[in-house]
Amino acid sequence: MALIVQKYGGTSVGNVERIQNVANKVSKFVKDGHQVVVAVSAMSGETNRLTSLANVITSEPSRREMDVLLTTGEQVTIALLSMALQNIGHEAISYTGWQVPISTNNIHSKARIESIDGDKIKSQLNQGKVVVVAGFQGMSEYGDITTLGRGGSDTTAVALAAALNADECQIYTDVDGVYTTDPRVVPEAKRLDVITYDEMLELASLGAKVLQIRSVEFASKYKVPLRVLSSMKEGGGTLLISEKDFEESDMEKPLISGIAFSRDEAKLMILGVPDKPGVAFQILGPISDANIEIDMIIQNQGQDGTTDFTFTLSRSELSAAKAVLEATAAKLGAREVLSDDTIVKISMVGIGMKSHSGIASNMFKTLADNNINIQMIGTTEIKISVIIEEEGLETAVQALHAAFELDK
Amino acid sequence: MALIVQKYGGTSVGNVERIQNVANKVSKFVKDGHQVVVAVSAMSGETNRLTSLANVITSEPSRREMDVLLTTGEQVTIALLSMALQNIGHEAISYTGWQVPISTNNIHSKARIESIDGDKIKSQLNQGKVVVVAGFQGMSEYGDITTLGRGGSDTTAVALAAALNADECQIYTDVDGVYTTDPRVVPEAKRLDVITYDEMLELASLGAKVLQIRSVEFASKYKVPLRVLSSMKEGGGTLLISEKDFEESDMEKPLISGIAFSRDEAKLMILGVPDKPGVAFQILGPISDANIEIDMIIQNQGQDGTTDFTFTLSRSELSAAKAVLEATAAKLGAREVLSDDTIVKISMVGIGMKSHSGIASNMFKTLADNNINIQMIGTTEIKISVIIEEEGLETAVQALHAAFELDK
Repeated sequence: MALIVQKYGGTSVGNVERIQNVANKVSKFVKDGHQVVVAVSAMSGETNRLTSLANVITSEPSRREMDVLLTTGEQVTIALLSMALQNIGHEAISYTGWQVPISTNNIHSKARIESIDGDKIKSQLNQGKVVVVAGFQGMSEYGDITTLGRGGSDTTAVALAAALNADECQIYTDVDGVYTTDPRVVPEAKRLDVITYDEMLELASLGAKVLQIRSVEFASKYKVPLRVLSSMKEGGGTLLISEKDFEESDMEKPLISGIAFSRDEAKLMILGVPDKPGVAFQILGPISDANIEIDMIIQNQGQDGTTDFTFTLSRSELSAAKAVLEATAAKLGAREVLSDDTIVKISMVGIGMKSHSGIASNMFKTLADNNINIQMIGTTEIKISVIIEEEGLETAVQALHAAFELDK
Repeated sequence: MALIVQKYGGTSVGNVERIQNVANKVSKFVKDGHQVVVAVSAMSGETNRLTSLANVITSEPSRREMDVLLTTGEQVTIALLSMALQNIGHEAISYTGWQVPISTNNIHSKARIESIDGDKIKSQLNQGKVVVVAGFQGMSEYGDITTLGRGGSDTTAVALAAALNADECQIYTDVDGVYTTDPRVVPEAKRLDVITYDEMLELASLGAKVLQIRSVEFASKYKVPLRVLSSMKEGGGTLLISEKDFEESDMEKPLISGIAFSRDEAKLMILGVPDKPGVAFQILGPISDANIEIDMIIQNQGQDGTTDFTFTLSRSELSAAKAVLEATAAKLGAREVLSDDTIVKISMVGIGMKSHSGIASNMFKTLADNNINIQMIGTTEIKISVIIEEEGLETAVQALHAAFELDK
């Protein structure tokens, strides 16, 4: 007998029939002898419906009241799913966030979970009940209703699993796991059986939006075995575990787990900046002050006492950032500012990099063999990212996927 | 400066525009310097929408989960009304039942309020805020969400007024007050400025369904001045107060406050029952065991050692009750069972009856003058009810309304 926390998103509970399907899915686990806690989102469309009501009144509703409004969405789902479970013969009980209670800080609309008291849930599980918990919501120290922000139901599920010391947290979604890369670009892309939290975080932040990043961080922090799987088709999905557990297992460790890429990349260059201490801060400070996040940064020192800076950012922020940078250029006496919004980023991620050398050079050789020019390079312990011209994206990803035998 | 509790029902908050109208109404009271607490219902149609979702799953949903489901309705309204108040420049804060908290017993779907902690609300009022509270809902000692049953938002408002020691509780509804009788039957019917709780209870239980009975009982118990008024048109409505306050006021006390009538009446007779001690219980016990409520009862002792019983009940329960009574008749050796579903009840209500004699005889004379035969008579301290043939209803009510000068 295991204790399993499952999470079903808005699409999986999008209408009453789908809620009944979820009940049937949960039922199988209960019949196999497991204790099950289910975290659910609002029915798809409900959050938009409620937001529209608020927006008739004001385009800037109070965040506290928006949280009161939106949390009714999951409250409806927990009641209906509990009824559906009862209707097929299972004892079930619903809990809102405040009933558990799931305690959060007081930042309405993007609160963070501070603690979960699992006693009530455990007591119900021990009475043989399925416990259905509203995702996405909690309660502040003032007794106010809070929400965890977009995708927060994943975090609710992982945090519940941590608090209950669950054997596994299963996130049911519309994909059946984490793939070596986007199958739309590489049809041979394979589903990964296992991946480490850190690899997932690198992949997630690069666009493989299967799980909310915060939920993976949470799982990593509390060592919750986290499984991503499809609510529609059968299959074991992808299991996220710690590197230590991965190493202690007898599973084969690939050098590279996956290849992520992002098309939402742009590049800004400021050339011929008189070089002196503090110049990096003078250039990047105003960008940061404008709340623009930058990603990769390169500085090239010239021969003539000047220096060039290049950095990448989201395409949507390019024009705002360029205006800021041009003002800085005028102030510092820089030669010119250039921009490019036809670049993309490709990243290879794998814990195997830590112990194997030669991966970077193999990557660069593969790209060179395919006539793809590398504009920028960035690395972390388990990731190598390159910036290339966007027209080379598909060729590059396909070539790297084959070269590192990710289809095997 | 007064502390006023207002209640707006589902129709008054039926869409976002109406919620904005309510905000404007509340705003006037705040601008006049009053502290205002607002209790609201779910938007009209919402309760039916939610119930339909549950009924796709099961026709007999768990009452606990129905309460979880339905209470989202008021939660949506409190958030939207708070936003609407904020949008026109008032500070406002919403509270669900559990946030106040409004403590109830554990009878899901028809819980009773046990206590209300008014501290949080008072603190917010003293900070200059309008406090918007979800009607109809509370929390049990187990931390479960409960509902007060149909019309429970009236009770929430009155209970809040009692707990906060409010100066007045105003129930906004789709009628502009309590009338001397139904204006559809007597066009000259007049709105009453003042009525006592006891009179209202007699009128309400007889079909003048302006206020939920329990809310009037609550107001009476805690001496909350309760005003019924229209959310659509201006006017002072009808104020409900205690008899003592009425007597101490210099308001003119009418002999009769109003005439109520009910078409939902039927009569059952069991004739020729051998008379012996305990026969009443033998006849009425099985009816009560079948959960059928009876209203007026008459027993006639015959000359031949037998007795006749006649009682009235709701028409919808006539056939069930008749079957029970026929079984009893066979058992007791009664002569026959007769039924009649063409009767109505007319009741005159007024605290003036306590101190004035002759009202009953004046009533009987008026009916006789109009050729209306009285079948049964029942009285309380402040009410005289008669059962008559239904075809005489309108003539009787019009004649009594004129005879007692209720149109003056």
